[in-house]
Amino acid sequence: MRLGVVILAAGLGKRMRSALPKVLHPLAGKPLLGHVMDTAESIGAARIVTVYGHGGDQVRTALADTGCLWVEQAEQLGTGHAVIQAMPQVADMDRVLILYGDVPLITGETLNRLLQVAVDTDLGILTADVPDPAGYGRILRDSRGQVIGIVEEKDATPEQRTITEINTGILVADRSKLDGWLARIGNDNVQGEYYLTDVTALAAAEDVAVASTRPGRLAEVAGVNDRVQLAALERDYQLHAAEDLMRSGVTLADPSRFDLRGVLQAEPDVVIDINCIFEGVVRLSSGTRIGPNCLLKDCSIGPDTHVLANSVIEGAVVGAQARIGPFARLRPDTRLADHTHVGNFVEIKKTSLGAGSKANHLSYLGDAEIGAGVNVGAGTITCNYDGANKSLTLIEDGAFIGSNTALVAPVRVGAGATIGAGSVIARDTPPDQLTLTRAPQRTIPGWTRPRKRPVT
Amino acid sequence: MRLGVVILAAGLGKRMRSALPKVLHPLAGKPLLGHVMDTAESIGAARIVTVYGHGGDQVRTALADTGCLWVEQAEQLGTGHAVIQAMPQVADMDRVLILYGDVPLITGETLNRLLQVAVDTDLGILTADVPDPAGYGRILRDSRGQVIGIVEEKDATPEQRTITEINTGILVADRSKLDGWLARIGNDNVQGEYYLTDVTALAAAEDVAVASTRPGRLAEVAGVNDRVQLAALERDYQLHAAEDLMRSGVTLADPSRFDLRGVLQAEPDVVIDINCIFEGVVRLSSGTRIGPNCLLKDCSIGPDTHVLANSVIEGAVVGAQARIGPFARLRPDTRLADHTHVGNFVEIKKTSLGAGSKANHLSYLGDAEIGAGVNVGAGTITCNYDGANKSLTLIEDGAFIGSNTALVAPVRVGAGATIGAGSVIARDTPPDQLTLTRAPQRTIPGWTRPRKRPVT
Amino acid sequence: MRLGVVILAAGLGKRMRSALPKVLHPLAGKPLLGHVMDTAESIGAARIVTVYGHGGDQVRTALADTGCLWVEQAEQLGTGHAVIQAMPQVADMDRVLILYGDVPLITGETLNRLLQVAVDTDLGILTADVPDPAGYGRILRDSRGQVIGIVEEKDATPEQRTITEINTGILVADRSKLDGWLARIGNDNVQGEYYLTDVTALAAAEDVAVASTRPGRLAEVAGVNDRVQLAALERDYQLHAAEDLMRSGVTLADPSRFDLRGVLQAEPDVVIDINCIFEGVVRLSSGTRIGPNCLLKDCSIGPDTHVLANSVIEGAVVGAQARIGPFARLRPDTRLADHTHVGNFVEIKKTSLGAGSKANHLSYLGDAEIGAGVNVGAGTITCNYDGANKSLTLIEDGAFIGSNTALVAPVRVGAGATIGAGSVIARDTPPDQLTLTRAPQRTIPGWTRPRKRPVT
Repeated sequence: MRLGVVILAAGLGKRMRSALPKVLHPLAGKPLLGHVMDTAESIGAARIVTVYGHGGDQVRTALADTGCLWVEQAEQLGTGHAVIQAMPQVADMDRVLILYGDVPLITGETLNRLLQVAVDTDLGILTADVPDPAGYGRILRDSRGQVIGIVEEKDATPEQRTITEINTGILVADRSKLDGWLARIGNDNVQGEYYLTDVTALAAAEDVAVASTRPGRLAEVAGVNDRVQLAALERDYQLHAAEDLMRSGVTLADPSRFDLRGVLQAEPDVVIDINCIFEGVVRLSSGTRIGPNCLLKDCSIGPDTHVLANSVIEGAVVGAQARIGPFARLRPDTRLADHTHVGNFVEIKKTSLGAGSKANHLSYLGDAEIGAGVNVGAGTITCNYDGANKSLTLIEDGAFIGSNTALVAPVRVGAGATIGAGSVIARDTPPDQLTLTRAPQRTIPGWTRPRKRPVT
Repeated sequence: MRLGVVILAAGLGKRMRSALPKVLHPLAGKPLLGHVMDTAESIGAARIVTVYGHGGDQVRTALADTGCLWVEQAEQLGTGHAVIQAMPQVADMDRVLILYGDVPLITGETLNRLLQVAVDTDLGILTADVPDPAGYGRILRDSRGQVIGIVEEKDATPEQRTITEINTGILVADRSKLDGWLARIGNDNVQGEYYLTDVTALAAAEDVAVASTRPGRLAEVAGVNDRVQLAALERDYQLHAAEDLMRSGVTLADPSRFDLRGVLQAEPDVVIDINCIFEGVVRLSSGTRIGPNCLLKDCSIGPDTHVLANSVIEGAVVGAQARIGPFARLRPDTRLADHTHVGNFVEIKKTSLGAGSKANHLSYLGDAEIGAGVNVGAGTITCNYDGANKSLTLIEDGAFIGSNTALVAPVRVGAGATIGAGSVIARDTPPDQLTLTRAPQRTIPGWTRPRKRPVT
Repeated sequence: MRLGVVILAAGLGKRMRSALPKVLHPLAGKPLLGHVMDTAESIGAARIVTVYGHGGDQVRTALADTGCLWVEQAEQLGTGHAVIQAMPQVADMDRVLILYGDVPLITGETLNRLLQVAVDTDLGILTADVPDPAGYGRILRDSRGQVIGIVEEKDATPEQRTITEINTGILVADRSKLDGWLARIGNDNVQGEYYLTDVTALAAAEDVAVASTRPGRLAEVAGVNDRVQLAALERDYQLHAAEDLMRSGVTLADPSRFDLRGVLQAEPDVVIDINCIFEGVVRLSSGTRIGPNCLLKDCSIGPDTHVLANSVIEGAVVGAQARIGPFARLRPDTRLADHTHVGNFVEIKKTSLGAGSKANHLSYLGDAEIGAGVNVGAGTITCNYDGANKSLTLIEDGAFIGSNTALVAPVRVGAGATIGAGSVIARDTPPDQLTLTRAPQRTIPGWTRPRKRPVT
């Protein structure tokens, strides 16, 4: 059974009030359409065809890497018309599943169930029971519970309007049957559009047994039409992700203040405080604690390491039992070995720090290789940029860098060397010795403090 | 039709447990009473009279600029008595609208509707349907639905207590009729107070058709008696403000973690991450992204500028496509041109930064004029204060300030000049040349590292 | 009446997926079991006996200081069996109260009520009305409302399953009666376990009048089986703590973004902005304002002091009308006098700052005694550590420390002294005079800027 998935993504999304096409708005850091494509892939779709709208080149470009096929629906003539555009691209498929680019939270689990219930028939639809069905097409069933059609709100009798089972629009059909039904749907309605919904009535009229199932959660079939709905689904996604993490053994101080925008691989007994954000791919080892208000992106943190409050980490690899923050900033290509300490108001980029080394206060370390057991004093700055080029600073094992030191790269500080406070080190320093730059301390005789200038 | 508004604000607010009068407690950064005054103004009140309590001079002082008239209610003898004190101040008005200083979220939309429904009669009251009416006066209506009175909880029959439509206390009346009714309300009750509520019964007894309407949302008529209620209304306000923003085209990562305490003018396609706070008047141009945990006050941010996590901005004007933060602090009178970069642990105040200039790391720039294309190295400090006076630092276009440099103001760095790392620049430097202060680098022969002192 | 409390804490807690025993997981910063022990103590328990599980030495160790007795339940043979292990330790008590180490929010108020209703009988049980009783034992009552037994879900008739009053497991009993009942409960069930629940049926069969009461809130009797439930109770605790604070006169910008992990003693008219965390014992005086995203631990803040956004304070004592932050970090043994200012990117530890002194920008002050009226310039660093020992820096009243200064401890700056910007002060400086280290400013003739290296 070869499954083709057609994703309808041609809607204008006017209520988003955005220059960005609706299906490209991110949810949990990924475009709405990307969620749908990933889910389609996860259920083993042999082909994915996305129908985009007139001028939707931005959509194609943004998701060009997905291996998805693209079909333009130049005119907005309804969902049925949109699917018709895509059918030639799935002509060699056995079945076709219709999804929507603005219904991002549909799960593979629900879709697999839909495929399963419809495995022996030509049409399966996903329905949902909702508290307030107003505006949706209602599912009509006969006395045996068999689906016999969908009636739109405007055509429904008062009794039909009390039906709370609605059509989600998601369906799977035999490919050749679907071709036939699509050829027969009309546009004889107020909008002059071709509605995919009509397929169900056509199938029922042919005595096709219409299979149906419901989603695990209503949010799976909720669409995004404006940013209020987008925010609601974002929160739903995050709470769900938070619960999954907690069940896997991660403590969250507050699941409603947790944001995952990518993949978080967290071992049991990781503890995450309030308001943390995870982006890209983040790995946290067992016993790691992340303090409040931290932002971690594309990084890996070793076991039993503590990241203290208000730290921002991106592109770093951190070892075990390290201590980072509060107010630390690790930038890409930072590598911190085990037992390292990086303290407040310290920025590190493209730098490795050896085991047990410390940079605890107000420093900037960039383009540096720093050995083990090094103490980097407060206010240390690697002058890695001369306005044209970046150069390396090497600090060997056991060196002690006095406070307020500028290390003018390229420069090497020898193993066990000590640098006097306030120095500007522009040449290599020998190991195990004290090197410094220091002007003599003078007290100026007869000097008087400046006085407040009169306001002129 | 001249409309006078009387705001009752004399309540003691004991349950607030505060030295601050209740109506001065801020909601969304503005005193409760200020919200009510602004709403009264928004519906075209010709005069606003606020009744304040004995010793409430703090209230008058705090809101002295509003152009509102003030009447003291020296004794707390009830709402009817309070209005009586104010009536001489509205003697030349046609109609009088009664509002409450501790009911802050009433909207102009609801009040205009009330004025409209009552336009042809002498009394209009605002009622509300509540799930639990216990404690409130119930609205009595005859079989035609006409309001015939208000019965207080304690006087209500069991049947009347099941009524869920309650009196909000907000009413509009013909001014001269109101004078008459007020003259006739008594204080023959347990508290010995004069209740404004009695006006409705007097009007109904005169066969005045009492008009009524309901608020758009219940929060509009909710009063603040303690800080729990204050917090609840604060959240209601914020969620409402968040939704308005989202519908206008702004993405909020989490509408329940958004705080507006002033005015936010945000163009479409602004993106605001979690936990941001906006105070005063803030303007955000299209494409601007505000990272998590930022505090912005009285500032303007140009298009496509990114403000990264944990930044605090006050009184700054920022151009287009700039990048600020994380951990940046912009203080008043900061002006950043287009394409500027201000990085982590950088504080700027009373300083302009020209196009494309960068101050990326651990710097303090105060009282400075910095040209275009300038690179301010890590750890740069403008020594703008000598203990008595502040002086200016001028850095001309294209200069390169080496790291850990102190610029002792007043001082000028010429165009294209380079300052060596670790310098203290106390005199003007020529353009295009390298200027520095630097003691020679020395290695001390025979020096040995300090040893751990024995604990004594 | 001598009351013994038996706390059952032997459960494995597999669903926590943790190396930490379930009852040691913290809620509001304290182990679940610690909450229960503290509550037992608060109601005047004469003895507290905790039953821990096989291998639960970690539990004993973690709570060794509590004065609680410990009994090991080597085999997990049910709650009845667990209590039987503990009974010898309470043989001299009059009554025994059974609590649970994973039911942390039970209050002294509810327990006192239970003790009171059962004061004249031999058994009192705590029951609860729940919306969904599935899975719980239902309370059976006779026509007079007298408890006659508890029926487990699996044994309940369809009619009994509609009962929404459930058994919480918490009970108080006459000690000697309890001994008797425990001796008679069997393990003739699928699990082969001894259930404490059976005690109620035995008592009712003896015509003991089983007293009962209900908790103030359902969360009091909620158990923790996984981290989702733990998070839910954490939030319940925090909202409750927030409401208590608000009713006592503290303003919280958002009670759902407030975290207390210890004790917060806050006077009226303290204002706390969003996302603040309080750990250990924190005292806030009247008029203190805590900005957003602050973390305060074991500290005391004087009246009318403002702590601005994103500050982290631990182990500090701060006076009145001080201003701290944003982005300030106070570490243990910091003492700030009245009217002090500590600004952005400033770290202070083991340091006192006298009245009116200021350290406003990018500084590290450690192991220092700083007098009154001192101005610490931007980028000042106390070099308190030479790699082996920590030494003191003394700055006397009225001194002015120029920017980017390193103070090499031990060192004393005299009263009224001025230190020139960019100095390294390694020897004591005289009072009232200017002291500095400064190399002459030179401009290098013929120097040319570095050029971009070709990429090799």
